[in-house]
Amino acid sequence: MVIKIRKLKKEDKPALMDILHNTPEFTADEVTIAEEVIDGSLDNPGKSGYFSLAAENDEGVFTGFISYGPVPMTQYAWDIYWLAVRREFQGHGVGAALLKAAEENIVQAGGRMAFIETSGKAQYDKTRRFYLTNDYKEICDLPDFYAPGDNKVIYQKILG
Amino acid sequence: MVIKIRKLKKEDKPALMDILHNTPEFTADEVTIAEEVIDGSLDNPGKSGYFSLAAENDEGVFTGFISYGPVPMTQYAWDIYWLAVRREFQGHGVGAALLKAAEENIVQAGGRMAFIETSGKAQYDKTRRFYLTNDYKEICDLPDFYAPGDNKVIYQKILG
Repeated sequence: MVIKIRKLKKEDKPALMDILHNTPEFTADEVTIAEEVIDGSLDNPGKSGYFSLAAENDEGVFTGFISYGPVPMTQYAWDIYWLAVRREFQGHGVGAALLKAAEENIVQAGGRMAFIETSGKAQYDKTRRFYLTNDYKEICDLPDFYAPGDNKVIYQKILG
Repeated sequence: MVIKIRKLKKEDKPALMDILHNTPEFTADEVTIAEEVIDGSLDNPGKSGYFSLAAENDEGVFTGFISYGPVPMTQYAWDIYWLAVRREFQGHGVGAALLKAAEENIVQAGGRMAFIETSGKAQYDKTRRFYLTNDYKEICDLPDFYAPGDNKVIYQKILG
């Protein structure tokens, strides 16, 4: 499968929202906040501090996106905020290609480490394995952070 | 020493900025971000998600402040964002009184845990001891987060 990574464009927004609404891991609250981050990255990445990349296949079909940005008040720490791949294209390396492209952009912008936060719940097992496979290390586990029984797990990768 | 805790008011802003500018632990970047949080809490706490309290002595002198707010996408986690006490009033329980009042407000608003993030650098030893003394537990230590040699330490307190 051909995977092309490029900047996210305003025209991608409907396809992107469709992915968000059809990713069962995302709650309504999370979709709202993801949309704010995405709009910030489309309007003015420099000002908002949010950057987004898109993945498409060789037919120009939008298959996924990633949003990331520098952590305020740090010298070179960056956060990966959102990463989602259209369900029927999962398992073909789209997520890994998006992550790799984001990491390259982060290094070019002077970043040296990336953080990802995710839920410790069973339904996120696949997500957490994905980060481990892509050389992120679990560095913190906050019990009951999101809700009772729903921990926050923090992953870090040293870049470059 | 009498310590009165009350809502932060717009008229406190000059005295508050004076504390920020005269607290050597705060960098210029941090002062900028602290001011955004404080302005949000003065303008519209419900909308901004930022709340602030002030401390004054029996002569009405502004001695310190605390800013806090709910963590987005969580059911009951809150963050303590900023806490500062005017230098000549430090060591008299102003910080502890501000923290206690914030915790009470958090519980009243339905919060059940508070997080505080601070630097692992030697100059923050006093700050970290203060949180431990006030029953915060160190739960995470992120190496080189803020800058080389400057870790982020995360503290948590279960409330109520």
